[in-house]
Amino acid sequence: MTVEQKVQQLHHYVNGEKVAGKSGNYASVYNPSKGEEIARVPLATREEVSEAIATAKAAFKGWRNTSVGKRVEILHRFRQLLVENEQELTELICTESGKTREDAKGEITRGLESVDMAIAAPQMLKGEYSVNVGGHINAFSRKDALGVVGTIAPFNFPVMVPLAITSMAVAVGNAVILKPSEKVPMSALFLCELWEKAGLPKGVWTVINGGKEAVDELLENKDVQAISFVGSTPIAEYIYATGTKHGKRVAAFGGGKNFMVIMPDADLEQTANAFLGAAYGAASQRCMAISGAIPVGEDTANRFVAILKEKISQLKVGDYQEAGVDFGPVITQQSKDVVIESIERAISESAEVVVDGRDWDIVKESKGFFVGPTLLDHVQPGMHAYEQEVFGPVRIVTRVSTLQEAIDLINAHELGNGVTIFTNNGGAARHFEDEIDVGMVGVNVPIPIPVGYHNFGGFKRSKFGEGHMFGPDQARFFTKTKTISEKWLTADEHATTAFSFPSNQDA
Amino acid sequence: MTVEQKVQQLHHYVNGEKVAGKSGNYASVYNPSKGEEIARVPLATREEVSEAIATAKAAFKGWRNTSVGKRVEILHRFRQLLVENEQELTELICTESGKTREDAKGEITRGLESVDMAIAAPQMLKGEYSVNVGGHINAFSRKDALGVVGTIAPFNFPVMVPLAITSMAVAVGNAVILKPSEKVPMSALFLCELWEKAGLPKGVWTVINGGKEAVDELLENKDVQAISFVGSTPIAEYIYATGTKHGKRVAAFGGGKNFMVIMPDADLEQTANAFLGAAYGAASQRCMAISGAIPVGEDTANRFVAILKEKISQLKVGDYQEAGVDFGPVITQQSKDVVIESIERAISESAEVVVDGRDWDIVKESKGFFVGPTLLDHVQPGMHAYEQEVFGPVRIVTRVSTLQEAIDLINAHELGNGVTIFTNNGGAARHFEDEIDVGMVGVNVPIPIPVGYHNFGGFKRSKFGEGHMFGPDQARFFTKTKTISEKWLTADEHATTAFSFPSNQDA
Amino acid sequence: MTVEQKVQQLHHYVNGEKVAGKSGNYASVYNPSKGEEIARVPLATREEVSEAIATAKAAFKGWRNTSVGKRVEILHRFRQLLVENEQELTELICTESGKTREDAKGEITRGLESVDMAIAAPQMLKGEYSVNVGGHINAFSRKDALGVVGTIAPFNFPVMVPLAITSMAVAVGNAVILKPSEKVPMSALFLCELWEKAGLPKGVWTVINGGKEAVDELLENKDVQAISFVGSTPIAEYIYATGTKHGKRVAAFGGGKNFMVIMPDADLEQTANAFLGAAYGAASQRCMAISGAIPVGEDTANRFVAILKEKISQLKVGDYQEAGVDFGPVITQQSKDVVIESIERAISESAEVVVDGRDWDIVKESKGFFVGPTLLDHVQPGMHAYEQEVFGPVRIVTRVSTLQEAIDLINAHELGNGVTIFTNNGGAARHFEDEIDVGMVGVNVPIPIPVGYHNFGGFKRSKFGEGHMFGPDQARFFTKTKTISEKWLTADEHATTAFSFPSNQDA
Amino acid sequence: MTVEQKVQQLHHYVNGEKVAGKSGNYASVYNPSKGEEIARVPLATREEVSEAIATAKAAFKGWRNTSVGKRVEILHRFRQLLVENEQELTELICTESGKTREDAKGEITRGLESVDMAIAAPQMLKGEYSVNVGGHINAFSRKDALGVVGTIAPFNFPVMVPLAITSMAVAVGNAVILKPSEKVPMSALFLCELWEKAGLPKGVWTVINGGKEAVDELLENKDVQAISFVGSTPIAEYIYATGTKHGKRVAAFGGGKNFMVIMPDADLEQTANAFLGAAYGAASQRCMAISGAIPVGEDTANRFVAILKEKISQLKVGDYQEAGVDFGPVITQQSKDVVIESIERAISESAEVVVDGRDWDIVKESKGFFVGPTLLDHVQPGMHAYEQEVFGPVRIVTRVSTLQEAIDLINAHELGNGVTIFTNNGGAARHFEDEIDVGMVGVNVPIPIPVGYHNFGGFKRSKFGEGHMFGPDQARFFTKTKTISEKWLTADEHATTAFSFPSNQDA
Repeated sequence: MTVEQKVQQLHHYVNGEKVAGKSGNYASVYNPSKGEEIARVPLATREEVSEAIATAKAAFKGWRNTSVGKRVEILHRFRQLLVENEQELTELICTESGKTREDAKGEITRGLESVDMAIAAPQMLKGEYSVNVGGHINAFSRKDALGVVGTIAPFNFPVMVPLAITSMAVAVGNAVILKPSEKVPMSALFLCELWEKAGLPKGVWTVINGGKEAVDELLENKDVQAISFVGSTPIAEYIYATGTKHGKRVAAFGGGKNFMVIMPDADLEQTANAFLGAAYGAASQRCMAISGAIPVGEDTANRFVAILKEKISQLKVGDYQEAGVDFGPVITQQSKDVVIESIERAISESAEVVVDGRDWDIVKESKGFFVGPTLLDHVQPGMHAYEQEVFGPVRIVTRVSTLQEAIDLINAHELGNGVTIFTNNGGAARHFEDEIDVGMVGVNVPIPIPVGYHNFGGFKRSKFGEGHMFGPDQARFFTKTKTISEKWLTADEHATTAFSFPSNQDA
Repeated sequence: MTVEQKVQQLHHYVNGEKVAGKSGNYASVYNPSKGEEIARVPLATREEVSEAIATAKAAFKGWRNTSVGKRVEILHRFRQLLVENEQELTELICTESGKTREDAKGEITRGLESVDMAIAAPQMLKGEYSVNVGGHINAFSRKDALGVVGTIAPFNFPVMVPLAITSMAVAVGNAVILKPSEKVPMSALFLCELWEKAGLPKGVWTVINGGKEAVDELLENKDVQAISFVGSTPIAEYIYATGTKHGKRVAAFGGGKNFMVIMPDADLEQTANAFLGAAYGAASQRCMAISGAIPVGEDTANRFVAILKEKISQLKVGDYQEAGVDFGPVITQQSKDVVIESIERAISESAEVVVDGRDWDIVKESKGFFVGPTLLDHVQPGMHAYEQEVFGPVRIVTRVSTLQEAIDLINAHELGNGVTIFTNNGGAARHFEDEIDVGMVGVNVPIPIPVGYHNFGGFKRSKFGEGHMFGPDQARFFTKTKTISEKWLTADEHATTAFSFPSNQDA
Repeated sequence: MTVEQKVQQLHHYVNGEKVAGKSGNYASVYNPSKGEEIARVPLATREEVSEAIATAKAAFKGWRNTSVGKRVEILHRFRQLLVENEQELTELICTESGKTREDAKGEITRGLESVDMAIAAPQMLKGEYSVNVGGHINAFSRKDALGVVGTIAPFNFPVMVPLAITSMAVAVGNAVILKPSEKVPMSALFLCELWEKAGLPKGVWTVINGGKEAVDELLENKDVQAISFVGSTPIAEYIYATGTKHGKRVAAFGGGKNFMVIMPDADLEQTANAFLGAAYGAASQRCMAISGAIPVGEDTANRFVAILKEKISQLKVGDYQEAGVDFGPVITQQSKDVVIESIERAISESAEVVVDGRDWDIVKESKGFFVGPTLLDHVQPGMHAYEQEVFGPVRIVTRVSTLQEAIDLINAHELGNGVTIFTNNGGAARHFEDEIDVGMVGVNVPIPIPVGYHNFGGFKRSKFGEGHMFGPDQARFFTKTKTISEKWLTADEHATTAFSFPSNQDA
Repeated sequence: MTVEQKVQQLHHYVNGEKVAGKSGNYASVYNPSKGEEIARVPLATREEVSEAIATAKAAFKGWRNTSVGKRVEILHRFRQLLVENEQELTELICTESGKTREDAKGEITRGLESVDMAIAAPQMLKGEYSVNVGGHINAFSRKDALGVVGTIAPFNFPVMVPLAITSMAVAVGNAVILKPSEKVPMSALFLCELWEKAGLPKGVWTVINGGKEAVDELLENKDVQAISFVGSTPIAEYIYATGTKHGKRVAAFGGGKNFMVIMPDADLEQTANAFLGAAYGAASQRCMAISGAIPVGEDTANRFVAILKEKISQLKVGDYQEAGVDFGPVITQQSKDVVIESIERAISESAEVVVDGRDWDIVKESKGFFVGPTLLDHVQPGMHAYEQEVFGPVRIVTRVSTLQEAIDLINAHELGNGVTIFTNNGGAARHFEDEIDVGMVGVNVPIPIPVGYHNFGGFKRSKFGEGHMFGPDQARFFTKTKTISEKWLTADEHATTAFSFPSNQDA
């Protein structure tokens, strides 16, 4: 196969059609396992985004007036198409993100959970109805779609996040503009084909590719009512501040520094297995990845680190097309450089390197963007590796003497996405749940991501805005509540003039 | 009684104690019916506010760990004290705001509704519990109090708004800092005494008096987690932008331009009565006041205006201590000037003055800040009286030919607080409810404010942020959702290492 | 085709297998459009039913411990199979019930709505979670499956009712025994094949054919926890009394006498169209069919009857295989006899026959069980045609002078399934909704059956027991709520002995 | 004081008035601590009950049409009166039931929780509202009051149970007939006075005293829509069978045999303290009392029984007027005889008597109905003391080897009210919660009664019917759901005739 054949020219998807980029600017899409460019994605100008928003706005009117039953019928068909095309989607994800097939399938399954939640829209959209609240008035509420909503997705879940932040938006009656990561646009574009086959009206689901320029148009265009974003904390903060300043509803999900607290009574062999997958899976490029272990007690720490050292050495890093690979490359060469730099910095700050990911053969020999699994012990608050989210397989151990010390440390960190504790003791778990200032908590669960019908969202600087991903609260984010007070006059119900303030006692 | 006796020196209320102002800066509090200064309220410095926040933060820890049952028990006692002290509260409201006794009592009753909603906190705080979501994991959610929350209240409801934006905050476990309007601080300070008698722990409910400096400290202090604001749209926008920029959750309720649409089949006599109270009550100083009538059809308009003209001429404006007064003064001399200026401007823009509020005897003769009821006909989009919220008894008539024209006009206005339609026709009402882009909708209801157990909140620039006042969603605003995934290991449940992403299929 | 080929020998479906009848007793299944026997269905003995219950009980244990996510995954596949097999299901329904293809498809679509509601089981199963209800106790609830549940279906919806009363039961974790009507067993048996293909474990969905003997075993067997029944009121009452006496949870849906009230302001042409379909569709063999019209005012009645008379004469009755048929036969020859007898009795009681269904050619000429559409005017309380549910195309007109008179009449009837009013007046509708003692109410809706995500159920003798079909309450019927109070002791939480009664104040 | 003065003549309370008994039949009310008759209560005839029902039915119409806000306002006042009259109520409870003051106060507090739940009626009554479910139809539900509801209370909670089973009934709009236990009627009659002072309209809350004749009228009178009962299992079963046969909604709460499972890791000193209060408090006359201990492991059992033996010997049994009394008498001499007989029978069945309650001095010396605390060890299934609920201070120990054995035993018992486990192990608790077939479960909680805002109700033969006491589901029990489908025609929405079945796809 020649290079010309390999490098695909990508497009946008607007008003139900593939639309070529007009700007002439393109970004390269890589297969990170090979380190090779595989496609070129157009970067939209503000004008292109603005035009796409206009078509979405036009499509919104018909879509919001379609009964929720009919809308959900299309989601059922879309779900079925996702199931039928799992194989093709898996390959696309693996190719552009480098993750393993099993991991890609897990991502698709989580994406299906989002679609399932959206299929429950008829329940989620129910308002409340009260009879005779006073003065023969019935009061009730309804949840109306917002209009055009923009969603900006990250590279690390090419399918799951787009599904997670758009399915419910579509189901409750909005028109969606998705800007996927320019590093993994092919999966999102494939979803367009499935929506089309499912019968979604033109203009209801739009994909616009691009970078900061496209994002800024979404943030500032007056016809965009809401923005969902998933990515790093600094960008999330920018998105939130800019979007709210322009009067939009914004939910911006940022990074995590997710600790696993290990109590002395935990089964350390099991816990270490849990740590390995949760910490290094997907080359640690998950906002819910376990970032570090906090063993309680010196003895627990010593035993746990010893077990980990042994197990980490047996991990297999490589191309997803090889058998038995545990995780693949990071997403770009730049990302690889940043991750390796973080190891060097940790060493300079006196962390103890238990396993050094730079030593792996594949790191040196492959053109792919590989970094081996790295474990740093004795990492403390104030050190770079402790404070920052590292988006690559560099994980830390921070030692404490008591559970309370672990809780205080975690609560003091500026991020508060996820956390987990391993113990058999009900009292320790209850105290941890009560006191920990983190949005998603696990007990003996490796990755504390909630199931799709519960709300996803962190605390502190891991989430900006009140919205949630997944879960019932997502339907709230994508709708506005209209409250109606209705009185029907019959012959014997004559109103008099009331100059004082009305209350429910007026009956 | 001498002047020295009359002008009261007011204070703050911090950590369960009356605290004198330290800044030496004071604002005057007037009895607007007399035009006389009755008290002087201290204006807090940022340091004073900061210290108050620190005491609230300290009080928060004990309060959040108090069971919701005990917290609600205190709210029950507080409610009972409100009932027992209704008379004294009424006089305070009337004295500092100028509203009529009946109106003040209506305000207190609505305030009680907020307390009642807060008393339902045990229900409102319930999370969701799911068994075996996969892999022997139970998943559940809990709503945790935020911490210290700041609330900034307007002058027009000296008791209702403070109760509305703090009762639920207290009930769900937060510590509240209230900054009442410096024009009506006495009612809020009286509430402090009731909370104290009810047994609320020191520091959980704080009143800090002040102006912009106090507000800015609330907006920027890192220990304040959320801000509730009620006031005008420009200030609401500032509060929202500033508060969100500083990482706070903000609900900022702004102004309204609330129209009453009158269909040809409406009973015009009844509708006119409804209009009078809803439009001119409290000298129109309500964000839910009806701002204008939109009669559908020329004949409807002619008949409606004729009835109104007759009825308005019979209204009585005056001091609340006189018998039979329909409404009182506006809040300040400055406010009176602004309202009168709006009449003049309307005339210059060719509105037709049906009734001129400047002509009332009391306007010329009293030192109180009175403006007579004013009706302007043929007011159109683009005119000042159409576009702006006027906080005084100047109301407008805008004529349209069809219901759709009325809907389009209303939807094009930048504000979207309340709206109401008078008709007997089910089809007209349903179409109106579907198409109108306004948060609170009435059908044959003069003021479309929802009953206390439904959500209060407008659309467009009438509300910034996702929060609601009153209603079940208020409990959401004042809490954050923690989601927990819990797996308890038994002997036969050994975990294996999973490097792929978890889903609910893993059981 | 010979008779031997045509008359199919049917079976039961137990533990994932087709099982032949052991009793030697069979009932005939007819094609009512032809009047020909098409199959023979085995009638189970108590022993056969008892054995089926035992296999279901065994299957229950694994099924209830399967995560709801996995259970719902199977429902998704089942739903997809229903969509793919709509054509074949339609033919089966038409063949054994005689209804038109369009009607059969409508039935399948409603059945899908039940499956969709069941797919929302993860939401429906959520319990409530409260933190620190006092004394460091968390309290929460969970909804556990009941075990083996029996469902007894009628002939008039061979697919919809079985889906409606079993889908949610399966989704929430029960094992279901379905006894379809012995008149239409083939559709239910076809569903078995779809469940099997969808991957439902053996024993979770069982079909047992039979008559009273089978029913009695379901009602009395101690391993059956709940019974759902749909059928006539006398049988529903028997099922309820017998089932509850044997300690079971029972929801028994009986008959309806569903009136359409027609106000003078209604569009009579539209209303008549609505009446025709709602009253005569499916040969009136629906518990939600409109049984009679109650026009308000003599003039309304005269005009309405005149329009109806004209329109009824144009209806086409016949075999579903013919083009343009409006409705088909009743289910059996016996049923035809009963319906015709009801006409004769009405005449003897002085009803006025506007259209006589006995006169239709097809009634006399076909071997199918046809009855033509019949309209009786001036039917009054006390007359057989007024008091009794007639399961065939004999509909009545009862004349009243006022809306209140209509309401009083309807409220006095022993049945209270559905009712509808046609008017444009909001006040009339509101008064009707408030005062009418009927479970399902329509306003300008021909058949007031709620959409699938709202609760289905009548009042008075139309429903026995608190359960609902369709809607969120169905999940309640098929589960029991377990409430857990959980305290985890930490070192500093020592309990003391309390001899008095605990309350939420103990914190 | 002479006997004539002491023996009070009691009455009924009908239509807001004290009404003397007409039958001439009376029952004696005792002070069980003294063994003296203190009052005589009239036993109503069926006619008297029927007349009371008629007045309640008349009162219902106005009450159900009163806005829920106004109804709840009365409940607020009633609550306040309960708080103000706690002292007097306490004395009444103690006098007629013999329980200690602290216990009586605990009962009142729990009663207040019921009133609080009822005060949340505006939330509890909310229906669901869906927009455009298809064909321009909005669908919504409302919960309507049932009418006259009868409630039959036991002797063991003279105030709590009447409040628990009537407060919500009243709040949601029903008219209540309460038949208190003829052994403790004075507390219930005192509540009448409080309702009256609170402003409840005449006829909405009725007390009728009586025995089986009164009960039977409530069960059979066609104007009674629902029955709540709390008492023993055999009577509950009779109430349920009879009430449902007469078409009523029935919730009948029966007895409990509530075990405390003690795991080897539990703190036995703490657990023993928990056992003492939960098992012997109120002389064990609570349906939620702990009936027996199931220690896991022989060593656990030996240690636990030794600690209990020591602690039980220190308990103080006596008149509530004495200081330091742990519990008082049983309710009647007959009850005392039954309890003592149960000890004798246990001995004859080879149980080991660890402490013998017959030996207490007070048992022999007092005229009061005292039985000392009794502990029987090695009690096994099949023995009378194991199978039967003993309503007096005779408690058992049943020894098992494993947790699973404990679970299997408990699940095999015919009663399933409450159960609790003491352990520190999260896995043991989770397994117990999953597998135990009991309605109310505790973990390290002495008495697993849920807090008032969660549902109360057992499984198996501890509850007949689907209703719950306390908790949100109580509002469901006392209302019926009406579902409305509403379409408003506008000029361009002309209906056509549809003969097929409607679905949400028709938009």
